[in-house]
Amino acid sequence: MHDASDPRLADFADLRDVELRKSLEAEHGLFIAEGEKVIRRAVAAGYPVRAVLLTRRWVDSLADVLEGLGDRVHVVDDAVMEKITGFPVHRGALASMERRALPPVAEILAGSRRPGGEPVAAPRRVLVLEDLVDHGNVGAIFRCAAALGVEAVVLSPRCADPLYRRAVKVSMGAVFAIPYARMDDWYGGLAELRAAGFRTLALTPDQSAVPLDEAEMGERVALLLGSEGDGLSSRWLREADLPVCVPMSPAALERGVDSLNVVAAAAIACHGLMRRDRPAR
Amino acid sequence: MHDASDPRLADFADLRDVELRKSLEAEHGLFIAEGEKVIRRAVAAGYPVRAVLLTRRWVDSLADVLEGLGDRVHVVDDAVMEKITGFPVHRGALASMERRALPPVAEILAGSRRPGGEPVAAPRRVLVLEDLVDHGNVGAIFRCAAALGVEAVVLSPRCADPLYRRAVKVSMGAVFAIPYARMDDWYGGLAELRAAGFRTLALTPDQSAVPLDEAEMGERVALLLGSEGDGLSSRWLREADLPVCVPMSPAALERGVDSLNVVAAAAIACHGLMRRDRPAR
Repeated sequence: MHDASDPRLADFADLRDVELRKSLEAEHGLFIAEGEKVIRRAVAAGYPVRAVLLTRRWVDSLADVLEGLGDRVHVVDDAVMEKITGFPVHRGALASMERRALPPVAEILAGSRRPGGEPVAAPRRVLVLEDLVDHGNVGAIFRCAAALGVEAVVLSPRCADPLYRRAVKVSMGAVFAIPYARMDDWYGGLAELRAAGFRTLALTPDQSAVPLDEAEMGERVALLLGSEGDGLSSRWLREADLPVCVPMSPAALERGVDSLNVVAAAAIACHGLMRRDRPAR
Repeated sequence: MHDASDPRLADFADLRDVELRKSLEAEHGLFIAEGEKVIRRAVAAGYPVRAVLLTRRWVDSLADVLEGLGDRVHVVDDAVMEKITGFPVHRGALASMERRALPPVAEILAGSRRPGGEPVAAPRRVLVLEDLVDHGNVGAIFRCAAALGVEAVVLSPRCADPLYRRAVKVSMGAVFAIPYARMDDWYGGLAELRAAGFRTLALTPDQSAVPLDEAEMGERVALLLGSEGDGLSSRWLREADLPVCVPMSPAALERGVDSLNVVAAAAIACHGLMRRDRPAR
């Protein structure tokens, strides 16, 4: 048993303090996986385990993961866990994992790598996330993307981190299942996609845009999603090949319901891309 | 100016204490609208204002809403606001509003009422939410439903409250734009829908179900959505006219990404219902 001030538990400190966690995780190159299922998916994707913090009742079911970790396994009671992390950890087990260097965007678009390491074909359907702020939204969008046949994700330089605890948790580990990279350069970011042969579709709530279901597709398609408040930047909207929308109900527009949240829009758009690729039987 | 212990501010106490808020709001028949946009939508939907708590900088822009409220308007500084509510209120203005008695399910299905009070046609497209736990999910689903042409929502007896602060906020006020009611009886709840002529489609992650895009529709359709963890109860799944699914990518299933979150699934399903109703131009 440990007490909360044990320095070996520093990886797990104050998990709800976003600013502290951002700098701590960047400095040490780590991220946190929460709950048995997500921990297993991180391990299966090849991320090395730094340490595990868990309560007694999870020791047996995670025995294979804990094997060989020696004194990097920390079994504590609920009260100590809450004291270290700053909140009641319902899932009872946390692992700190080593981050890997993200591949360059070009490498992701060429399809040569996936988080697990095995070779993959060049992606034909890609999401591009511009400056999303909310980690939960990023996680939910990765889950949609992975479930609905999107093959890679590209992040703008300022988009929220997919390996932040809440993103990992909301994604149910889908952030490990889908290759992603981060642009160095926001301003010229779309040029690289176009050079790689992607048709860029900019999703907008503007109802004068072409409905996604009717948009001309291409062999390679990149769907651009904007931030929660303001949507896509005017630069990306202007630079994209085509603005597309999810049509709203006319009655909704009359009642002032004029947009979907970004996760709902992303879900509908990913489903639409998959359906266009593989028409109904 | 007030201090945090002023009893006239009791409506706004401890907004992050879910259990306390549930009992306080039930006892006093109130709910909380947060931020100018949502407050305005609640007022426009005809809910009477009990009191408003806001910081100085919101007084001008909300002047018309505050008019006539007299000493039920409480202007405080940020620190007092945080002390009362228990968190930093970024949107700077909170209104406590009077709840109205919910109409019976039969009345909603007959289309005789909407929150604003004006008569509406009988709904043809209805969502039925079974035991959703998360207020944010309920709010997000109302927003999708309102944006995508769903005309009414029916809640199971234990489904989370759409007028809880977080649901209202995430819905961006869509909980005021769409009529809803709560079943008295979970066990026999679907019988009432069927008696009203609704074809009941049960959304399930089970990939052997009929894809929603291919399901036979009806003049009236009720789409059933289950709770976050377990999905629909076996009773409702069994009793529904047809189980339907959102098809996943085969690659996702291989990688263990086997479901969408309930908001993403709801968004895709509402969009699918609307598209089936009004085929692409």
